Amino acid sequence: MLASTSRYRAFPALRPGDPVTVVAPASPFDRASFEAGLEIIAGRYRVQYDPGLLTRHRYLAGSDERRLAELATALADTRARAVFCARGGYGMLRLLPGLEGIAIGAKPVIGFSDITPLHQLLQRQGHVSVHGPVLTQLSRLDAPAHARLFELLESQTPAEDLTGAETYVEGVAEGPLLGGNLAVLTRLLGTPFLAPLEGAVLLLEDVGERPYQLDRMWTHLELAGVFRQVRGIVLGEFIGCEEKGAEYSSAQVLRELAAATGLPCAAGFPIGHGAQNLAVPLGTRVRLDAGSRRLSFLESAAG
Amino acid sequence: MLASTSRYRAFPALRPGDPVTVVAPASPFDRASFEAGLEIIAGRYRVQYDPGLLTRHRYLAGSDERRLAELATALADTRARAVFCARGGYGMLRLLPGLEGIAIGAKPVIGFSDITPLHQLLQRQGHVSVHGPVLTQLSRLDAPAHARLFELLESQTPAEDLTGAETYVEGVAEGPLLGGNLAVLTRLLGTPFLAPLEGAVLLLEDVGERPYQLDRMWTHLELAGVFRQVRGIVLGEFIGCEEKGAEYSSAQVLRELAAATGLPCAAGFPIGHGAQNLAVPLGTRVRLDAGSRRLSFLESAAG
Repeated sequence: MLASTSRYRAFPALRPGDPVTVVAPASPFDRASFEAGLEIIAGRYRVQYDPGLLTRHRYLAGSDERRLAELATALADTRARAVFCARGGYGMLRLLPGLEGIAIGAKPVIGFSDITPLHQLLQRQGHVSVHGPVLTQLSRLDAPAHARLFELLESQTPAEDLTGAETYVEGVAEGPLLGGNLAVLTRLLGTPFLAPLEGAVLLLEDVGERPYQLDRMWTHLELAGVFRQVRGIVLGEFIGCEEKGAEYSSAQVLRELAAATGLPCAAGFPIGHGAQNLAVPLGTRVRLDAGSRRLSFLESAAG
Repeated sequence: MLASTSRYRAFPALRPGDPVTVVAPASPFDRASFEAGLEIIAGRYRVQYDPGLLTRHRYLAGSDERRLAELATALADTRARAVFCARGGYGMLRLLPGLEGIAIGAKPVIGFSDITPLHQLLQRQGHVSVHGPVLTQLSRLDAPAHARLFELLESQTPAEDLTGAETYVEGVAEGPLLGGNLAVLTRLLGTPFLAPLEGAVLLLEDVGERPYQLDRMWTHLELAGVFRQVRGIVLGEFIGCEEKGAEYSSAQVLRELAAATGLPCAAGFPIGHGAQNLAVPLGTRVRLDAGSRRLSFLESAAG
């Protein structure tokens, strides 16, 4: 079982001034957050987007047809050097069958949460992508979070290590970093849209799920055999996941679930729905030293 | 593709006074609801249970070991004629690996919601089971709901037809009735614990899920190919599934999702988390006439 360095291809490093595209494949958002995020990206790159992304249909940023056409065009476009997702929420799953067979240029997708299935699509096709802030979140993050994102997109040296808050299971694991949002990732189980997780270091984070729901999703991964495939577990933030009035915490529940896998696992990395959401490259080789709560990046995302 | 009458075995008809077992494989519950339900069952059968089922560990009715031992014993016990579940909630998923390979006597399990994976286990082993009230819910249901449950357990004639509230997609489908709770059933996708759904009429119901969450779970079934396997869809109640302040309803969302499958589908059957929760036999052959919103039972559950 190889944690192959070459299984995933780095994307060509971005340079300031490069053209990039913004897409909205999932839920709608308010214009103010969008424009605030746009300003941050536009301070660095030349941003293009279809004004149709401000459309709203129930909990979706426009019809499936609109979102699919926008995303397929952005992924295939050979001129734009990166695809920034405006927001997560819900909606990416609905586009998956329509994206099969489309050509994906060598460029990163940036996003998280509901964007997880899009990352998985890129990893299925052998691409590295960037688990990081969505555009509408950018203005609520601080300058170091912005700097880390730009560095990840532009630098040919590996990202700086991240430190977690707690060791759940000691041990060291090395492999490509894969995964993302727990709720959304588990919605790919039993479908052809899940990237092979064999040999991976699995990243999981979530928001607004009660402890028993975290347990249910984690148990789904377990019953599907995922914890027999992966080598280690990196837990990002689990925000708003407490049960009111309960004498137990989501951390206690996650710690016990992690212990049952026997896999190296550290928790509380500043990844996901928290105040930082530091960008990390999916598909690049990482080393988790759970005992010292350290996640090291062994490859650059950009080549 | 046969909607085989013989794929699932009827259970021996119960008689008043028969010994039956109560188990709590999922979440804990309050003693008053338990005793009120017990009284209703005890008015008909000789009820046995292990007092350990009143244990509480976080969101579980005691440890996995306790719940597994209780359930495995109840399923194997050749004297008791039926297994009543005290409550759903969450917890059944955690027991599935431990139940593999255990002998299941010819007797029905009665329950719904989180009990769905237990029904699926019975159907994987070729047994009919009863999608119906959990014990702690019984005292909130009316006498006809109780009568229907007892009749299903004791009668060798098929259950009375049920009528739904709305046609989503016209058409007629015939096959074994399988399924249960949407949220819980989808947690079996990609695992070895899902019963074969080929040729089935699929029953779905849920509680407390927002429209986008229903969409996400339904889309999971779609991406996993389930709607290419089943012949028709029976929607029970979807309680507390509205989005506050939204201009759309969960019914609209479900109707559109159903339409996209092209399968005969009727909704609003009094099955699930509503005020009636009429018992229906899983694994027996049914006929759904979606145009007339009628679900007919072609076989008795008891033999």
